Amino acid sequence: MLKNSAPLPSVRRLPLYLTVLEEFSREGREWISTTDFSEVLFLKPIQVRKDLAHTGIIGKPKKGFKVDELISTIYNFLGWNNLTEAFLVGSGALGSALLGYEGFQRHGLNIVAAFDVSSDIIGKTIHGKEILSMDKLPDLAKRMQVKLGIITVPSSGAQQAADSLVEAGISGIWNFSPIKLQVPETVVVQREDISSGLAVLSVKLGRFD
Amino acid sequence: MLKNSAPLPSVRRLPLYLTVLEEFSREGREWISTTDFSEVLFLKPIQVRKDLAHTGIIGKPKKGFKVDELISTIYNFLGWNNLTEAFLVGSGALGSALLGYEGFQRHGLNIVAAFDVSSDIIGKTIHGKEILSMDKLPDLAKRMQVKLGIITVPSSGAQQAADSLVEAGISGIWNFSPIKLQVPETVVVQREDISSGLAVLSVKLGRFD
Repeated sequence: MLKNSAPLPSVRRLPLYLTVLEEFSREGREWISTTDFSEVLFLKPIQVRKDLAHTGIIGKPKKGFKVDELISTIYNFLGWNNLTEAFLVGSGALGSALLGYEGFQRHGLNIVAAFDVSSDIIGKTIHGKEILSMDKLPDLAKRMQVKLGIITVPSSGAQQAADSLVEAGISGIWNFSPIKLQVPETVVVQREDISSGLAVLSVKLGRFD
Repeated sequence: MLKNSAPLPSVRRLPLYLTVLEEFSREGREWISTTDFSEVLFLKPIQVRKDLAHTGIIGKPKKGFKVDELISTIYNFLGWNNLTEAFLVGSGALGSALLGYEGFQRHGLNIVAAFDVSSDIIGKTIHGKEILSMDKLPDLAKRMQVKLGIITVPSSGAQQAADSLVEAGISGIWNFSPIKLQVPETVVVQREDISSGLAVLSVKLGRFD
């Protein structure tokens, strides 16, 4: 299957293509070419062609791709046409920011419940979601068949949060904590660190001082 | 100078070390060893030693590093001990989420003003900050001597936002839009895409279906 063989750097770029496509769509444009992508994203045309080929779509000579068709092909490839329901564990500053980020819905991600261990936060409502106590997680995960967990707790609590999610039957974890989680082989973990980019920027800026 | 030669992958990891250090500090622990880091972060000890060496710190045999000293060394190396003031351009969903993320203060980033082009948003208050019209940006940037801009507008407006920031004298841009910005050589740009990680996770999850 094509999907299984797509290299991850290509996968990482697909959201970039989507953003361009969605703007073309808003502007009422019907077609988009490899050159259009390569000019906006500063990617080589050969790279654009390779990236898009992984989704299985075939362009039309001289015209390129139908905008709407390519959007739905990429969404389908990423599984973003079906909204994936997710639990968020850790409702501090970062967790709250993610709860308030409406862009996730467009990317097939729906945070259906948020949890915390702190009695200061449990019961509060953040961006329209009531923050629940961790002991409600297992039952709720099973009842709602939730398969994805987002971890935004401090690193000292991250492994415990992962353990709870795994025990509750979750199969994927988006890990915003800095530690590497120990999980069964069947569970997929993706680590994210928003401060890494800021660190690189800070050092690069320092180099110009 | 050491700082100039540090490889960016090492720089990207420094925030991970900081998070571990800050937890050691909260727990009242005075020393931290290479092994402590390597166990929490799943990095090879030799990698930990190399990464930390770039900051110029020298550990003590058998004891490792003084927690507080290493924290301030890394902050100093990244320039995070001085709060960098930044402007945020684009106060939609992602911009609002970043405005509400208190973690940035810890990382030396202080968003002092937020801007937008939409009359629906201008004048509103988001996370305690009034959203200003773009035409106020140049004067304010010069008056406040702001050197960093964060772009969270849709890609169609990103280059224009960058142009305004550059014209206002900004020397660094943290670009959350998908397009590659055209800026003078003296301006540093760091591109960030939070959805890339989600795309990789989605595809990995699909592979296990």
